[in-house]
Amino acid sequence: MADTTIGILGAGQLGRMLALAGVPLGLQFRFFDPMPNGPAARLGMQIAANYTDQDALTRFADGLELVTYEFENVPLPTAAFLAQHVPVLPPPAALAAAQDRLTEKQFFQDLGIPTAPVAKIETYADLLHAVHTMGLPAVLKTRRMGYDGKGQYVLHTLEDANQAWASLGSQALILEGFIQFQRELSILAVRGLTGETSCYPLVENTHSEGILRQTRAPAPALNPQLQEQAEHYARSALERLGYVGVLAIELFQVNGQLIVNEMAPRVHNSGHWTIEGAETSQFENHLRAIMGLPLGATTPRGNSTMTNLIGELPDIRALLATPGAHLHLYEKEPRTGRKIGHVTVCEPRAKNQ
Amino acid sequence: MADTTIGILGAGQLGRMLALAGVPLGLQFRFFDPMPNGPAARLGMQIAANYTDQDALTRFADGLELVTYEFENVPLPTAAFLAQHVPVLPPPAALAAAQDRLTEKQFFQDLGIPTAPVAKIETYADLLHAVHTMGLPAVLKTRRMGYDGKGQYVLHTLEDANQAWASLGSQALILEGFIQFQRELSILAVRGLTGETSCYPLVENTHSEGILRQTRAPAPALNPQLQEQAEHYARSALERLGYVGVLAIELFQVNGQLIVNEMAPRVHNSGHWTIEGAETSQFENHLRAIMGLPLGATTPRGNSTMTNLIGELPDIRALLATPGAHLHLYEKEPRTGRKIGHVTVCEPRAKNQ
Repeated sequence: MADTTIGILGAGQLGRMLALAGVPLGLQFRFFDPMPNGPAARLGMQIAANYTDQDALTRFADGLELVTYEFENVPLPTAAFLAQHVPVLPPPAALAAAQDRLTEKQFFQDLGIPTAPVAKIETYADLLHAVHTMGLPAVLKTRRMGYDGKGQYVLHTLEDANQAWASLGSQALILEGFIQFQRELSILAVRGLTGETSCYPLVENTHSEGILRQTRAPAPALNPQLQEQAEHYARSALERLGYVGVLAIELFQVNGQLIVNEMAPRVHNSGHWTIEGAETSQFENHLRAIMGLPLGATTPRGNSTMTNLIGELPDIRALLATPGAHLHLYEKEPRTGRKIGHVTVCEPRAKNQ
Repeated sequence: MADTTIGILGAGQLGRMLALAGVPLGLQFRFFDPMPNGPAARLGMQIAANYTDQDALTRFADGLELVTYEFENVPLPTAAFLAQHVPVLPPPAALAAAQDRLTEKQFFQDLGIPTAPVAKIETYADLLHAVHTMGLPAVLKTRRMGYDGKGQYVLHTLEDANQAWASLGSQALILEGFIQFQRELSILAVRGLTGETSCYPLVENTHSEGILRQTRAPAPALNPQLQEQAEHYARSALERLGYVGVLAIELFQVNGQLIVNEMAPRVHNSGHWTIEGAETSQFENHLRAIMGLPLGATTPRGNSTMTNLIGELPDIRALLATPGAHLHLYEKEPRTGRKIGHVTVCEPRAKNQ
């Protein structure tokens, strides 16, 4: 793999960890991100330009083996433009399906996979009608560009609906039924260039203020039926999309059943535990997949807990003194609500597991 | 650890793996190596200049938190010059002790630790006298700059002695007694800035043509007495040197006893298995030690076998398809006898271990 350079759209922490996994495989990296000096820029050249800058995109694509991406809001015209020059994986169709909360829900419903009920909201009348039909509570969300809980409001009353409409009404919206879940889970799956698939165990996620705080892997009290159901969902989605790479699906557990919340066509925060906690990390497996190499085992190595470092750095010495703790800093300026690192604590699996 | 840059003397694969371990800790790296574009250069700026170039060394040292090294033949004046500007760790005294096979043996003998018998050879008469006293077989070695079996001859006859003298006689030499060992082992130990020490389990090494081929970790049939003896040797050496960082000691097992062969004041090829096979890698622990951070656990995670990729690349696909295999390529041009990568295969530890 001498002189093989992979282009990554986005130069954030996911790009950084992809590169850290790829360097030992002999791969080189180039990043494209409008924001200069991203966390990944230490590990390869970064082109800082707008996603609409075709000159910059052409320079970026020059000599690349392929292009992948570390976030799902890559503009579709950018992906399409690059795809004229160089393979783009995962396939841009996955971006299209995942970028819009309405098409995303419809994608899963078409596969016979349960999601929350959803209604398309274009007018205030649509909203009133949907609230009436679906009942409250419900969640009003922008169809595009939402992340970490941004661009959404939980509606408990008609007054909430009016306020949310005042804030979001200029954008394309959906109303989603509010799911009373037992817990939030996610599954990471990977599909290779020749169609082989592999899934990591379901993990349990704790969110607060819309931001992932902690992932426990494998999810506690995980029964085989649940894992099987999640893998069925993941494999259906991978096949339908002709997917190549790592796909993350967020799920709600409701009465022993799994309901899809959303998907991300990329490596995912709830998979960071795999760096130390699985036989092969999500980052390495994403690279193996898009490079057409054999996938690595997704077997967990004991039990892991991944905790995001959000807003400000904790006491690094205390953290490194914690048995089994593995620290990952992203070299981002601390700022309220910002993910600036994570720590994974690994424990050997108990003998009877 | 924002904006903390560590300088590394040498930009080879050890520097590369140090940087790969340090980036997640938020550390930045700068390399110094006479040979441009070393395997580490992808992970930080490299200054390519001679070790005697004080201007280049001054530029290198500018703004560094500290300097460490990835090979033991850093010229002592280089280390001394840098130490005027910035802390150099491990302490240069360790370089002095390890660079010369005679002082190295004397260092261990002074600690009451057994080594092969050794004689200083300055003249042909010295050689004849030592051969007579020590008996044959014995090994004639240069005192300095030997690695991977270079600069040494095994002498079985007086004729061998004459030929070896013709080849090496212009250099400072030693004659070493030939040790009939059961096996070759090594131990990696780490000492923190405040004196705490930790040891990895003994590993078993297989050499061929003077080059390490394979390491099995932990060493098979490892009994606690052997581990205890090795740790005693390692801790004695660490204390005597006021050492900070990772130290490797190569040993011969002879009738259930350990004899020191040599030491390397740096991370070591026989410790590469620790990347996946131990709770904390030798690379991370070296960085933790020199940065004055708490050391990480040296506990093995199952059994590992590390195999060097020497001379030419094997079939990468076949290799990645091997269960538990972790590939590390160094981006070095393939060349006979050259280490261009390694692969570690991890197996979960059997239930009864």
